[in-house]
Amino acid sequence: MKSHTVHLTMNVPVRMDFVNITDQVEEAVNASGVREGLCLVNAMHITASVFINDDEPGLHEDYKRWLEQLAPFDASPERYHHNRTGEDNGDAHHKRQVMGREVVVAVSGGKLDFGPWEQIFYGEFDGRRRKRVLVKIIGE
Amino acid sequence: MKSHTVHLTMNVPVRMDFVNITDQVEEAVNASGVREGLCLVNAMHITASVFINDDEPGLHEDYKRWLEQLAPFDASPERYHHNRTGEDNGDAHHKRQVMGREVVVAVSGGKLDFGPWEQIFYGEFDGRRRKRVLVKIIGE
Amino acid sequence: MKSHTVHLTMNVPVRMDFVNITDQVEEAVNASGVREGLCLVNAMHITASVFINDDEPGLHEDYKRWLEQLAPFDASPERYHHNRTGEDNGDAHHKRQVMGREVVVAVSGGKLDFGPWEQIFYGEFDGRRRKRVLVKIIGE
Repeated sequence: MKSHTVHLTMNVPVRMDFVNITDQVEEAVNASGVREGLCLVNAMHITASVFINDDEPGLHEDYKRWLEQLAPFDASPERYHHNRTGEDNGDAHHKRQVMGREVVVAVSGGKLDFGPWEQIFYGEFDGRRRKRVLVKIIGE
Repeated sequence: MKSHTVHLTMNVPVRMDFVNITDQVEEAVNASGVREGLCLVNAMHITASVFINDDEPGLHEDYKRWLEQLAPFDASPERYHHNRTGEDNGDAHHKRQVMGREVVVAVSGGKLDFGPWEQIFYGEFDGRRRKRVLVKIIGE
Repeated sequence: MKSHTVHLTMNVPVRMDFVNITDQVEEAVNASGVREGLCLVNAMHITASVFINDDEPGLHEDYKRWLEQLAPFDASPERYHHNRTGEDNGDAHHKRQVMGREVVVAVSGGKLDFGPWEQIFYGEFDGRRRKRVLVKIIGE
């Protein structure tokens, strides 16, 4: 069994945004030499997500508006007791749960076994700082 | 290490519905010859889900009503900017994020290592077209 | 390829709560002898979750309040048709979908390959009964 691990560094200059990391994951799959296996991609921080959806700017606007409705930013400790710790990112911990921490993608014939529109995104909900994404491929 | 990949074809005749695919996943596990390993099952389309829950019609009605509240169908481009592309399925991209893209199930002793009520469902949110589900088993 | 499977038993004395199970998962990883691989941790019951987030009591209060807004407890069969079956846990099946069934964690150098604040939680939404969590590690 082969395995290959890469840690990507993200630095999103705004509070909330989505970054297409498909090319970087494909590079990691190529470097792994794995032909048949599984590829895990996960945010290593708990106010960020990795998810698969469409690379369409209108949809990304929609997600931002919708997540802001489901879990609005509010730095006060009244809405989010988490902010009693001195943090202001209680909302980000909620948004991340809706969008998910990780994806597992099949590797078949040495490539990400994707449907027609699948693209991998890093979802940032408390940006303006360095964070990491883990990519791990195992297989043969 | 063994690996086995199957692509299921789904064709749900309505916009939103849930289809129990547990038997087809079990067949793939049997065909793989894997005794100990992991089984990935994911929607290959970004307006569909694979999830595990109860095979109970009342619950499925509940999910549909709840998802319609969280992300209502609206073909107009006002609510979902995604629909400016000419699509009418902005809602489906949101419903899919709530229900998730994939499940990873343990294979133990050659079988899906399930709790008492776990069943695997395909969740369709923009049906009336052919879509695919990927099943990949790796292990020994 | 090595594999190792552990079933944890949970018994949460209230309806909804979160239990940090990171130490038990780490023990399973140690016992597996796997240095490089993947670790699946999933709830085996469909009214419970496994998720990764912060071990901060204020955040956990926030999650409970937020989940109660998204899918309020209501034993009547009017809000949740699932409760026509005689159950009163329709809400729990919804809360579990928001928080997720499972996590897959990389194992690197014999340890869970975690970011600075990642901790694994069991999320219970219909407690006061015994339930199980599956931990499975595969790799080499």
